[in-house]
Amino acid sequence: MVTIKDVANMAGVSVATVSRVINETGYVHADTRKKVESAVQQLNFKPNEVARSLYKRKSRLIGLLLPDITNPYFPQLARGVEDRMQENDFRLIFGNSDENKQKEMDYIQTFIQNNVVGVISSTNYPDTDTYLKLKIPVVFLDRTLGDSPSVYSDGREGGRLAAQEMLARGSKRITIMQGPAHIRPAQDRFQGAIEVLEESGLPYHIIRTSSFSFHDAESSAKELFHKYAGTDGIIASNDIAATAVLHEALRLGLKVPDEVQIIGFDDIPLSRLLSPSLSTIRQPSYEMGREAANLLIQLIEQTNVANKNIQFPVQFVERDTTRKVD
Amino acid sequence: MVTIKDVANMAGVSVATVSRVINETGYVHADTRKKVESAVQQLNFKPNEVARSLYKRKSRLIGLLLPDITNPYFPQLARGVEDRMQENDFRLIFGNSDENKQKEMDYIQTFIQNNVVGVISSTNYPDTDTYLKLKIPVVFLDRTLGDSPSVYSDGREGGRLAAQEMLARGSKRITIMQGPAHIRPAQDRFQGAIEVLEESGLPYHIIRTSSFSFHDAESSAKELFHKYAGTDGIIASNDIAATAVLHEALRLGLKVPDEVQIIGFDDIPLSRLLSPSLSTIRQPSYEMGREAANLLIQLIEQTNVANKNIQFPVQFVERDTTRKVD
Repeated sequence: MVTIKDVANMAGVSVATVSRVINETGYVHADTRKKVESAVQQLNFKPNEVARSLYKRKSRLIGLLLPDITNPYFPQLARGVEDRMQENDFRLIFGNSDENKQKEMDYIQTFIQNNVVGVISSTNYPDTDTYLKLKIPVVFLDRTLGDSPSVYSDGREGGRLAAQEMLARGSKRITIMQGPAHIRPAQDRFQGAIEVLEESGLPYHIIRTSSFSFHDAESSAKELFHKYAGTDGIIASNDIAATAVLHEALRLGLKVPDEVQIIGFDDIPLSRLLSPSLSTIRQPSYEMGREAANLLIQLIEQTNVANKNIQFPVQFVERDTTRKVD
Repeated sequence: MVTIKDVANMAGVSVATVSRVINETGYVHADTRKKVESAVQQLNFKPNEVARSLYKRKSRLIGLLLPDITNPYFPQLARGVEDRMQENDFRLIFGNSDENKQKEMDYIQTFIQNNVVGVISSTNYPDTDTYLKLKIPVVFLDRTLGDSPSVYSDGREGGRLAAQEMLARGSKRITIMQGPAHIRPAQDRFQGAIEVLEESGLPYHIIRTSSFSFHDAESSAKELFHKYAGTDGIIASNDIAATAVLHEALRLGLKVPDEVQIIGFDDIPLSRLLSPSLSTIRQPSYEMGREAANLLIQLIEQTNVANKNIQFPVQFVERDTTRKVD
């Protein structure tokens, strides 16, 4: 293995000089710098990142905390974060919080112990001491809190859109699935849909769900058609729930979209491959992940950040679980 | 912030003694050890992981390299790895290789620079110098190479099973989708299916695919029905491909499974929610991830490892894209 001594010998300078060049910690004459850089290149010397991290008190590690990577919405977010971070040579320490506060705090603690220089977190607890007292930049992803740096989509508008499109396509006995109570984006989209339905004056029903898991999606879908057999339009809490509702509707022999319309939320990649393909509200999750990484890099590098609160628009993606209108 | 000095002061011992207790690097009298441990607890002292890592040349970081987290097969694997690692307080540095050798080697390099103590990798290049020369344990996941530690499923048997079930259910003009040529598990399952079809003496067709992406799955599905319109049974390269084939078959007005049977591979969580639900060959991906983590922990802790090559069985999951038999 090549060491800093080998570099110093080849360049004909001291180890301290090599260290100054590598760590950018003091004046080195331009000619000397060139000699050192040339030796580093020729020997293919890779400084130990941990030693550098301790010395400079800086690493190239970022902590990324997501609720659950097995929920198909999150791999896109994670991929966006990673692609952007990789372009700037940052690496990710990754954890699933399961929306569990204690697990989340434990992760943040170990992120700090590993000298991460920034954190991206999809947390339900942005206002806890743990985040407020962190001495490194934090970007909330898919979540927002006051002026704190955050990247999210307009969930309330998404809920409004879903309800408007459902009404415009003629559903009159709509059922809304309300996502888990402690997950803010789930409540935003729910509130948006409720607003529009209240304005319409039409009756509607609500089905409450306690998680975004596949298993709960199936049982919620069954409960929905059992309780509200006459429903003719379902605004699902996300695309997984919508997929389960579609599955159950077809199993019961209902015609989609003629007898029941369904609108999902997220636009996960599989939505377009369902049969019939799923109409949904699209969040640009990959782009949101990239933008969160971009914002965090700016904060770490202390460049002038014009906008720390980045809201992405949502849009209705018309496919085949809703009827056509002119 | 609590420092090692505060702990030493409270315990009435030297900093060196505290260090010996924390890092388990030398003899300390039992009474002294108790005093130190009590002080650590009362002050809630958290040793800096990076400093420990440099001192002990050991971290609690593991490198995890997967092809692409947005392929729905991999989140389950990743989750299995993370859950098991978290139980032993290890943390994951995570990267997507995109099956690209250069990107993969860059990641391994930065894993090493960050002093990871082990690597789990789903690589197509297990026999490169980079892996052979690593001085830390490596477990290949979803891949295998000779005696190297690895956790994988029986892909060839999976391919055989898919073909056997297809034949037993009466398909006579079968089309096999061959996954990307450089991905070993894709070729194993393909070979297994070919073996059984050759033994049967029936004619069959092959569609080659170049990736496991959603986009390519859609175009392969279209190509398949265009080229081999009379096919009555499709053995897909994975569940994404099967989902696209099912979507295209229904779009063309074909009856599934009466006119065309479809069998996938993987059993991703959404497979059971498709309509009709997807018959497939199940790999226990979450359990494989856990087992890979478990094996790596044993190798790191140098416990006596009885079996370094762990093969998981696969099984046919009968759902509604295949016909029933007695």
